[in-house]
Order: sequence, then structure tokens, then C-alpha cells
Amino acid sequence: MAAEQQQSEARREQGQAGAGNEQRQRSRREDNVIFVGKKPTMSYVLAVITQISGGAKEIHLKARGRSISRAVDVAEVVRRRFVTDMKHTVMIDTEEVTDEKGNKLNVSTIDVKMFKQ
Amino acid sequence: MAAEQQQSEARREQGQAGAGNEQRQRSRREDNVIFVGKKPTMSYVLAVITQISGGAKEIHLKARGRSISRAVDVAEVVRRRFVTDMKHTVMIDTEEVTDEKGNKLNVSTIDVKMFKQ
Repeated sequence: MAAEQQQSEARREQGQAGAGNEQRQRSRREDNVIFVGKKPTMSYVLAVITQISGGAKEIHLKARGRSISRAVDVAEVVRRRFVTDMKHTVMIDTEEVTDEKGNKLNVSTIDVKMFKQ
Repeated sequence: MAAEQQQSEARREQGQAGAGNEQRQRSRREDNVIFVGKKPTMSYVLAVITQISGGAKEIHLKARGRSISRAVDVAEVVRRRFVTDMKHTVMIDTEEVTDEKGNKLNVSTIDVKMFKQ
């Protein structure tokens, strides 16, 4: 999976060869990640659509804990109402976070990859 | 995907050939689905482990709306603490439900398939 992602990034960089320096390419890559939190679902839907209109071919929606269901909502609203030719794959994982008292907690995470084929 | 599932069901039925009638086989198939709702996460973890101990090779965790994040928690707790050789694939979708006033609402759903390879 990591190798596949690197490949697709390499392809994108070839496509814009000479268009910018490394820092610009890095910021463009990170732009493809949208962290879903406690704002209304439609804020994130708008963020996704803005990125797609800007030419992004692949977007990652990431969320943790109780926001996971909102990330799924965002992906589904985008796919059903706005960009119907989008596919998605979903990965789930666990992250360790430290709270203000220094206790370690495990929190579930989701990563919804949305892409056009 | 559906064909694959049918195949694995066919294999399971061969394995218990003559063990029961069709109704019994049907209830065994539906046993592989655990609907995650508002109970504590560990109740569902226990349900998954019970099924695995009973010989189930594949389990579907299904949830809707706000319970989606709990379904992810269940899958991650099972995979990390109890049955570490389990893989999962995640699918998300939308269902239409009708509330008590007759309004139609779209609600997101998740289906986490857990299986041993």
C-alpha cells in the first residue's frame, strides 16, 4: 500500500515536472488530507468538493473516536449528492493518545480514501 | 464479492453435510452478523469472541449513524487484544430510514468484515 502511494505520488510529480520546488509539492500532498472533527458535516463536504474542483484526484478523510461516523457521513454525502463517479476504500486503525493527566488511551481512527478511477 | 461469499457458504455447508436442515443453515449464516448499537463496546467484543470460539471464520459487524464509531472500536479491540491474526475489510454505504413522522432520512452504515486467512 505504501509503495502504491509512493508510485502515484511519483506519477503526479512527473506530471507537474518543473512546476514548483519540493516544498510546494509537499504542501500539495498534505492538502489531500482532510481531518474531520466536530464541525457540521457539510463544512467537510464543502472542503472535499473544493479540493476536487481544484484538480485533486485522491482525498483522504481522517477522523478519530466519535468523529468517525461524521467522516463516513461526509464520504457518503459527497459520493451520492455531488461526485457520483468517486470510489472509496476504508481503513481503520488504532492510535495511542496521551490525555492531560498523562494517561495513555487507545483511540480508533478511520481513513477514507476517495478517488476517481 | 457476493460470489466469493456464496462459495465460502457452499464450503461450510459441505463441511456439515447432513448435519441439519435448511433452516438451521440459514440461522447459522445470520449468526455471523453482529449489529452494533448503544450497548458498551465490550458487550460486542464478547459477542465476536464467542462466535470465533464457536468456529466462525468470518464475522460482519454492522452499525448505523452514531454507532459507527463503536463498531470500529469493537473491530480494533478484537484485533489488537484478543484475536491478533484477524484481517478486516470495511465497507460504507447509505440506508434510507423513515422516522415516526414519515420523513425519509439518509443514514450512513458501516460493515466491517472480520476474517481469518
